[in-house]
Amino acid sequence: MAGTDHGRLDTGAGGGPQPAIVLVEPQLGENIGACARAMLNCGLTDMRLVSPRDGWPNPKAEAMAAGALEVLERARVYSTTAEACADLTYVLATTARPRGVTKEALVPRAAAARLHARIGAGQPAGVLFGPERAGLVNEDITLADAVITVPLNPGFSSLNLAQAVLLVGYEWFQGGDDTPDVHLMGDGPPAPVETREFFFSRLETELEDAGFFYPEHLGPTMKRNLRTLFTRAGMTDQEVQSLHGVIKALTGKRRRAP
Amino acid sequence: MAGTDHGRLDTGAGGGPQPAIVLVEPQLGENIGACARAMLNCGLTDMRLVSPRDGWPNPKAEAMAAGALEVLERARVYSTTAEACADLTYVLATTARPRGVTKEALVPRAAAARLHARIGAGQPAGVLFGPERAGLVNEDITLADAVITVPLNPGFSSLNLAQAVLLVGYEWFQGGDDTPDVHLMGDGPPAPVETREFFFSRLETELEDAGFFYPEHLGPTMKRNLRTLFTRAGMTDQEVQSLHGVIKALTGKRRRAP
Repeated sequence: MAGTDHGRLDTGAGGGPQPAIVLVEPQLGENIGACARAMLNCGLTDMRLVSPRDGWPNPKAEAMAAGALEVLERARVYSTTAEACADLTYVLATTARPRGVTKEALVPRAAAARLHARIGAGQPAGVLFGPERAGLVNEDITLADAVITVPLNPGFSSLNLAQAVLLVGYEWFQGGDDTPDVHLMGDGPPAPVETREFFFSRLETELEDAGFFYPEHLGPTMKRNLRTLFTRAGMTDQEVQSLHGVIKALTGKRRRAP
Repeated sequence: MAGTDHGRLDTGAGGGPQPAIVLVEPQLGENIGACARAMLNCGLTDMRLVSPRDGWPNPKAEAMAAGALEVLERARVYSTTAEACADLTYVLATTARPRGVTKEALVPRAAAARLHARIGAGQPAGVLFGPERAGLVNEDITLADAVITVPLNPGFSSLNLAQAVLLVGYEWFQGGDDTPDVHLMGDGPPAPVETREFFFSRLETELEDAGFFYPEHLGPTMKRNLRTLFTRAGMTDQEVQSLHGVIKALTGKRRRAP
């Protein structure tokens, strides 16, 4: 009964309990190594192997895993899927096609939400991935509580093993990640309105001196359009300073002209 | 000015206008082939290559692309990123780390929403991916309207090129896909309440005959618990018929006992 006495709720690179990734009869060591990388990308470290074709450990897996050796070193080997899942209370099976088995089918995002709910409640969970070509057999799908199907181009939907692991792991990671959808990346803080207004007044004064606002009745609109453009850019303090320099340089140039 | 006169809004396997995938100075042909597969998985076919290191076409890319040769055959080669993007009105750059450039940073899901909004409005858009190791240079990031950063394990966040393309393409595809989050996969339709009730009554009658509901005052609770279990399973018509057979077989067996 391997699998029942350890690793009940692994704490890995993700910093908390996480789903087990169960590779059923994986064939190529390279693919196992690539899965280890994809797992670690997503903070997952509980790899379980059911009857890997070329035995275990596998030097080709290690060569491909590169910086994710820690995942391979912790990997455990089982002879059946049921043994690999013995301690899990919620199991999802990845499969491309229905096979006469009536199950709930979840998209990866919904699957990740279920996994977070289960694991957050202290219930060990895992995801099954089948062999490279054939995919999971019906017996393994039957063992699972529900299946995961990835919506992809129906004319070309086959993913390699590591990519399937990556997509499921990616959704798991996003489900626990608090990166805002959009944020300002970079050094400087955005310029406050006072700083922008000072720049706009200076720009408009210089442009008035240069006779830019012509015909005069369009002046207000032309000013508004320029303010809109610069405001939309979301200038930083540093950038406003640069623009002051630009005005200075350009007006100096103009004044130097004959 | 290659790139300005064709492919303005490609209609590919995805069935509609789609973002261009711009690989900047990709090194290994194998990676370009793997990107072609990841693109086609997501219905993307507008691949643009900026100065691929080993020239173009590349037999190693073809060997790796397998069923996604059509993407490679349509791929176009440019000598600069600006030329590859010449016809695009909205460009996103994938990058792991800020580099002293102040830009909006989007998670892939938000980036996909922006791409759908732009492309849906008839505005050609694309995504830049840098060379395998070094990533995009500042000049390319500067050219882009915003950047995409993929939230991943901060201790192990490097993705290979095809995986980065897959994650961005996956979010693009999900953004245009209408698969329900959860659906019932399989053959049989779920059993209606009338069919379930008939099964429950028969089960309870047989169990009453067998003296299962003991002590008697717990009968209602025991019945409710059994009904809850079977209802939670979401039985199909076919499964209810099978359960009738199970009752028949078990009661026959009991009656055959001495």
